[in-house]
This record gives sequence, C-alpha cells and structure tokens, in this order.
Amino acid sequence: MIKVIKIGGNVLDDEAVLKGFCRDFASLTGPKVLVHGGGKLASQLQSALGQTPLKIEGRRVTDADTLKVVTMTYAGWCNKQIVALLQAEGCNAIGLAGCDASVVTAEKRPPRTLSDGVTKVDYGFVGDVTPDSVNVPFLEMLLENGITPVLCAINHDGRGQLLNTNADTVAASVAAALKAYLVCCFELDGVLMDKDDPSSIIPSMDSRMFATLKAEGRVDGGMLPKLDNCFLALRQGASGAMIKNVSRLKDGLGTGIIL
Amino acid sequence: MIKVIKIGGNVLDDEAVLKGFCRDFASLTGPKVLVHGGGKLASQLQSALGQTPLKIEGRRVTDADTLKVVTMTYAGWCNKQIVALLQAEGCNAIGLAGCDASVVTAEKRPPRTLSDGVTKVDYGFVGDVTPDSVNVPFLEMLLENGITPVLCAINHDGRGQLLNTNADTVAASVAAALKAYLVCCFELDGVLMDKDDPSSIIPSMDSRMFATLKAEGRVDGGMLPKLDNCFLALRQGASGAMIKNVSRLKDGLGTGIIL
Repeated sequence: MIKVIKIGGNVLDDEAVLKGFCRDFASLTGPKVLVHGGGKLASQLQSALGQTPLKIEGRRVTDADTLKVVTMTYAGWCNKQIVALLQAEGCNAIGLAGCDASVVTAEKRPPRTLSDGVTKVDYGFVGDVTPDSVNVPFLEMLLENGITPVLCAINHDGRGQLLNTNADTVAASVAAALKAYLVCCFELDGVLMDKDDPSSIIPSMDSRMFATLKAEGRVDGGMLPKLDNCFLALRQGASGAMIKNVSRLKDGLGTGIIL
Repeated sequence: MIKVIKIGGNVLDDEAVLKGFCRDFASLTGPKVLVHGGGKLASQLQSALGQTPLKIEGRRVTDADTLKVVTMTYAGWCNKQIVALLQAEGCNAIGLAGCDASVVTAEKRPPRTLSDGVTKVDYGFVGDVTPDSVNVPFLEMLLENGITPVLCAINHDGRGQLLNTNADTVAASVAAALKAYLVCCFELDGVLMDKDDPSSIIPSMDSRMFATLKAEGRVDGGMLPKLDNCFLALRQGASGAMIKNVSRLKDGLGTGIIL
C-alpha cells in the first residue's frame, strides 16, 4: 500500500530534525509520497524584502509578491534541499510543484464574504485542490519506477497561473486519489486524551469519538484542522490515516483515524 | 531526433519574450528538452537582502547564502514559471533540478589557482558537469511518455549538497549524453561575419573557420564561450549544434556548428 507522509514547516526549520526525518523516511519500505509545508523561510524572506504579510480573518492574502516568495521558498529551497538529502540517503526522490507534469491542478479560490456578511475579500493567488486534481497515472508511473515524489504545495491552474495551496489538503487529496495511507506528522506522539499527560495517547479515533471530544473541548486549536483533514481524506477514498510524531516515523505509535 | 534548447537569463527577464518563447517552444514537434539560465532575479534578490555578489577573476563565488538565493530563483520561481506557461500552451513540461531523480549530478569544483600563479580560491558551492553526469534512462523515460524536461542549472553531488552550475555546460552535457541536437538561443540571428551588419549571418561554421575568425578578432566577447560550448557538445557526442535567435526558434535561420 502506498503511504503519503505529510510534514509541516517546523521540520524544515531545524536542520537536525530534517536530516533525521529524511533518514527515517528513506528507510521506509514500499511506495511512498512526501508532501511538505513551508516553514519560517517564506515569512523571513518577506520581512527581509520589506513585504508585510497580510492576513484577513486568519487567512493569508497571496498577492503577486507573496506568490513569488512562497514559490521560491517552497518549490525552490525547501523542496530541493529535501530531495538532495533524500538522494544522499539512497531514496530516489523527485521534487514536484503541481505544474510539473501537471501533477496537481488547483482552482483559484473565489472571493469570500467575511464574517460581517457584507465585505468580500479576494485572497489572491490561492488555490483549492481535490482528489480529482491529482494526476494519478503520472504518480503511479514514478512509483512503479522506484521514484519517490516529494510535493510542495505550489500548484497551478493549467492556464499559466501558479497558486499557493494548503499542504494538508494536498496531502489528503493525493492520499485519497491514490487510495493510500495518510500519515500526518507533527510534534507530539499522537492525539492526547489529557493534554497535560503526554502518555495519554488515543490509539484509535472514529468520527463519533471525534465529535464527543470536540464537544467536550478535549481537542481544539491546531489539532482540529489536522483531524478534519484526516477524516476528509478517508471520506474521499484514502485507505487509512494516522497522526504521529515526525521523529517516530518508524514505530507504531500514533493515533489511527477511522471513519 | 531529440532537441536540447538552451535559453539565457535575458529571456526570463522580459515577460512578453518569455511567453512568446514558451508558445514557440511548445509548438516544436518531436522530443525536446529545455535548459534555462537564471536572469537578473538572483542578483536583484541578493541586493534586496543586502548580500554583496562576489566575483573573482570574472567568476562568481557561491557561498551558502548565494546558493540559497540561486536555488530559490532558478529552481523555484524561474523554473516553475516556465513550466506553468508551457503547460498552458499544451506542452506537458516537468521542471527539474539535478537532484530530482538524480537527473544531473555535479562535482564540486576544487579550489583554483588565480592568474598570479599563487593564490588559491575556493569558489564555494559551484559544481561541474559532464555527459557522464546525466541520467539518460530517466530523461528517456520522460520523453517516451510525452513529458518535456525543463532543467535549471542547480545540481547536486549525490551526497546531500546542492551545487550551482553553468547552464551552458549543462545544456552541452545533456545534448551529448542524449546524442541530441543542441540549439543555443541568444538575441541575434546567428554568428555575424561583420558585427555591424545584422544580415551577415554565417550559415555554417566548422572548427577551422572558428579558429580563423577568432584569430582575426571577428568573433569575441560573449560569443566565444557560446561557440566553445557548441564545439564541446559536438566533441562529446551531440548530433548537431546551432546558434540562433530566441525569438526565431521556428525558422531555419541561425549558424550551424560542425566539427
């Protein structure tokens, strides 16, 4: 079964963590795909260039300058650095943005109405993806030839426009399209029943349990979108999903997600 | 026969020229590979970040900060912008740095002795490539599947290190390894017999004629390395070479190079 591993930007911000992750990822057997986020580099570069990152209601506005910065950092430095490290570990990786062999197409997000119910905001060069956006035959050709795709979250609309997309949604869509097992990595060993007790890992969670824990306020903050994303992947066709610690990729520890 | 087309950074600096080139390139029939240089973006980004580009005896020193900038610009923005434009023109392009599927490996350039015969200079993360550096089976697999490789000149040493390389040499090495026809694009219609007469294009030049014209001072400056590079490609196995105008890709005009 194909594994789709998603790592966040925090892995990219620490060279030792990234190297350790690449070593572990390279040693995983079987066909696999890596999807990575961005890290601090894009924001650092924006600041250094005197650009002011603009967020409206928690969402980043991607204007032309921002698009250039995220394409340079995610598809350029981050992606190629990961691929070079994986190659050094004997993993025949290939770095891809969505435009490459049109591996992932995206649709530009239409302007959204803000919570005041009146103001419409155009978030700029931001795109949304679905499992139908994924070029499955191309990914399968690579995997059949022993080549490991490494996807960043810069995609294209097929009409010449690059679009900044959400890396979690890319991972969910790719996992669903490939009927793969989605592994979402983060900095804890799994979803905790008691946030103050790192040993209280929930081994398995279904949607009913998720609803209960959410209602009780036991899962909140950054964990909610991660769990939503795993359930989305499963509903769209992924064969399984798990949330686990990025530094424990090779052991069984983590929270398995089931519908 | 496979064509390997090389474009310089100047094509990337002008959006209208780039779009026109992409339209022409997409409409070329038969298997083809694009190799592109960098353009002004890297120098602009270096200046904006307060970095001072350092050249010693005409060669750029690539320290860690410079490597990050050239990787971001060449492998990130330039490469993905070209690929997205080609996709919009119906050409199924894939953007690659050398680390991707290890398509081009490079060897770090050892420190060089300067013209004083004493001082040794380490040019940093700069690599050299040869036809043996090129992963021919992988390029052939892409071409056989109707996918057009778009190579930037950021390569890797296979041991985790990215290296900045010369795009002309990459184009020559790829053309030689694929026994392809090398087309070097620039801003004139070909090599001119009389530099002041744009119509005096030399239709065909062999190495003897090149030696004569060089001795007579009729070819000099930026044309010399271009011609040297074409002869190098031919000696290493390319099936043919031509120097022509980037905006006249589709007509026969240009200077054919023969050994």
